[in-house]
Amino acid sequence: MSSIQLGVPKGTRDFGPQTMAKRQFILDHIRRIFEKYGFQPLETPSMEQLSVLTGKYGEEGDQLLFKILNSGDFLKKTQPQDFEGGSKHLLDKISQKGLRYDLTVPFARYVVMHRHEITFPFKRYQMQPVWRADRPQRGRYREFMQCDADVVGTDSLLCEAEIVAMINEVFQQLGINDFTILVNHRKILGGMAEAIGAAGREAELAVSLDKFQKIGADKMAQELSQKGFAQGSIDQLLSMTSWKGDWSEIKQVLTKGIGSNAGTSEGIADLDNMLLLVQELGLSNANLQFDASLARGLSYYTGTIFEVVVNNATMGSVSGGGRYDDLTGVFGLPDVSGVGISFGVDRLYDVMEQLDLFPSDQLQFTKVLLVSLDEESMGSALELLGSLRNEGISSELYPDRAKLKKPLAYANKKNIPWVVLIGSEETEQGVISVKDMGAGTQSQMTPDQFLAHMN
Amino acid sequence: MSSIQLGVPKGTRDFGPQTMAKRQFILDHIRRIFEKYGFQPLETPSMEQLSVLTGKYGEEGDQLLFKILNSGDFLKKTQPQDFEGGSKHLLDKISQKGLRYDLTVPFARYVVMHRHEITFPFKRYQMQPVWRADRPQRGRYREFMQCDADVVGTDSLLCEAEIVAMINEVFQQLGINDFTILVNHRKILGGMAEAIGAAGREAELAVSLDKFQKIGADKMAQELSQKGFAQGSIDQLLSMTSWKGDWSEIKQVLTKGIGSNAGTSEGIADLDNMLLLVQELGLSNANLQFDASLARGLSYYTGTIFEVVVNNATMGSVSGGGRYDDLTGVFGLPDVSGVGISFGVDRLYDVMEQLDLFPSDQLQFTKVLLVSLDEESMGSALELLGSLRNEGISSELYPDRAKLKKPLAYANKKNIPWVVLIGSEETEQGVISVKDMGAGTQSQMTPDQFLAHMN
Repeated sequence: MSSIQLGVPKGTRDFGPQTMAKRQFILDHIRRIFEKYGFQPLETPSMEQLSVLTGKYGEEGDQLLFKILNSGDFLKKTQPQDFEGGSKHLLDKISQKGLRYDLTVPFARYVVMHRHEITFPFKRYQMQPVWRADRPQRGRYREFMQCDADVVGTDSLLCEAEIVAMINEVFQQLGINDFTILVNHRKILGGMAEAIGAAGREAELAVSLDKFQKIGADKMAQELSQKGFAQGSIDQLLSMTSWKGDWSEIKQVLTKGIGSNAGTSEGIADLDNMLLLVQELGLSNANLQFDASLARGLSYYTGTIFEVVVNNATMGSVSGGGRYDDLTGVFGLPDVSGVGISFGVDRLYDVMEQLDLFPSDQLQFTKVLLVSLDEESMGSALELLGSLRNEGISSELYPDRAKLKKPLAYANKKNIPWVVLIGSEETEQGVISVKDMGAGTQSQMTPDQFLAHMN
Repeated sequence: MSSIQLGVPKGTRDFGPQTMAKRQFILDHIRRIFEKYGFQPLETPSMEQLSVLTGKYGEEGDQLLFKILNSGDFLKKTQPQDFEGGSKHLLDKISQKGLRYDLTVPFARYVVMHRHEITFPFKRYQMQPVWRADRPQRGRYREFMQCDADVVGTDSLLCEAEIVAMINEVFQQLGINDFTILVNHRKILGGMAEAIGAAGREAELAVSLDKFQKIGADKMAQELSQKGFAQGSIDQLLSMTSWKGDWSEIKQVLTKGIGSNAGTSEGIADLDNMLLLVQELGLSNANLQFDASLARGLSYYTGTIFEVVVNNATMGSVSGGGRYDDLTGVFGLPDVSGVGISFGVDRLYDVMEQLDLFPSDQLQFTKVLLVSLDEESMGSALELLGSLRNEGISSELYPDRAKLKKPLAYANKKNIPWVVLIGSEETEQGVISVKDMGAGTQSQMTPDQFLAHMN
């Protein structure tokens, strides 16, 4: 072997055929459902100008951006003193581009750049990889796939209801039945902040609350204390995190616990109306639960927020989103209201593996492997191969002449359900031998009978 | 507007919904055909270790690689003297990763890394973007899509024949009928080199010949002269470039012109046998032409080589490939023979636009736009929406209540063929108004009648 240390960069992965079959199973379902709900595809470049990306994900996010060296002699425009200011200073001189960190900022850039061509409301979906120089760990990769759907240019609650319907359909079609869509509303979080004596500080609250499930009550309390929240406020907030469950029941608790203020009432009315629309869409049980501790850390959310958890899997949220009022403001186009949802394909994959939910019969590629047993039967084998493919049936002819063991091992490895043996003797009699790999049986028939059987 | 200069990096593009519909049309066809021929998907990371990429694409290629800055404090491991050696020297210290330049080298790396799990022959396809810091121009982008299919681990000529069949199917299904598959064989090129008195120099010849179509005879002759080829050899070679056409005719010319040598005979036998297999696969006219000037510049080809041109479009080759004997040798695994084909989606797209070949009825996403004309009809509209989607019909409800003009403009812009108007009066009578946007007609029917009509 060569001395090169072969491998892939840390946090990235090769996806071989078996894995790809499962990933495509997930992606195809999501794509089909997005399109059924009227979302149209968009793709943006893998690299963006750093000026588009930096400052959008907080200081930590900026550090996690993968930056691309200017091409050619990247030191051409530098001065000796540029090397004395450290990495941050030098960066400006030698790198102008970075890899996409999420699909939201590129989408916002696209909307602003193309605002005169776009017919609003604009329903777009986007399924592309994103890159983050994060420390890799279970469920966290440096290159991973995001699947986002957003509607912008309308504040209709129908959009929220449709997102609930889409989430339900995606999870059901993937065979994940035991999931919960957690909902909350940023204005209710505002009411909670007011009720605990921290009016206007809901953004800070959201960042800490967002970690509640992950780090627990004690650490969250500690963090809030460090941010200067009073102990009484923190205690009140902790008791509110138990407000969880069916909306019809929780609504009373909420009204009583927060008291009445304009924001809370608006939030409650939004959730009421959204749930009504969800029912009118035909979803009697939408797997919805209100959760006062759901916060979604990102600062741009302003209305209803969602997160989806799979109840019997050990994994954080696999999907999340919400309503925002000013996504494009940062690029100079204010007041574009929208709502979006993002599915984490890599986590969905891990959950489906954990729960053994991939249907093996839908992960097959080739349906038929033909094996020509001798030189003379090659013509017949090729003819049948052409006929099968004309019928749209994925099929292969084993390319080498070998003992039967090899083609059969090949079929097993590729999960091919039918193997057809073609020899010159049988060809003279007009028949072929068909092996059903699942049942382990073998029978003789004419090529036409086999074609009819496969259709 | 903000002062940020919005845009995408040079040579990269946003793909909006109309463009995406067309790109997906191409990609879906290619994917389906690859799978029908028994190829299984593979995806490799966007970034590779630079040690995997450098030295594989020549010196020019190394310069065109997009390099990624090490994350965090990328200057941490540098010394003051590292800045004095120039970009090339500093690069090693601050960048360990680069973006994929093609799909072939990552595939070779994958095969070597996973050689103990892979069942050979291994048929894989890969459809992913690649990046090159090339000067952008018509048909050349810095981020573009490649669609490759390769079989490795067998030297059966069936693989070559199947590639010819796949090319035919791809082009026919895309509606591109007037195309030519040019073929040649590296061993015939070897024979040509010998015949002009330059035995063993076919690799050098190939690099120059590869540019023949682009730069013309004079410039190619000049280049060969600079490489030290004798004028007599160059003249002979130039006359050979006219050996073009049907194999059965050209074969005689070839044998006569080159004379007999072992390599040429092998090359001729390979093409003979491949053509026989192509016919047995049921392709009487495979659009094949021999072309002695076809060379494929890349040095790893060793057998049959292909290139596809669309005859009535102004575009270079849109697809190409060939047989190689030692793709993985560079990673320490010798003697893995294989054959591959690559479709250039971005060029296919441009050709199909030029020739106006995209079928508009297959570029629609949403089939039905529902418009609820008043508050009272909302329930009925949502019910019909749910029913349509249950039947798998892509449909939307216009989310805002607006004058009819807006939803109709929306439907026109999104190329939605059916608009259904639902008002409370009509709802009481159990009917809806259905607009056929193509025909410009409108009629009343019950929701059930409409559902039946859509199926």
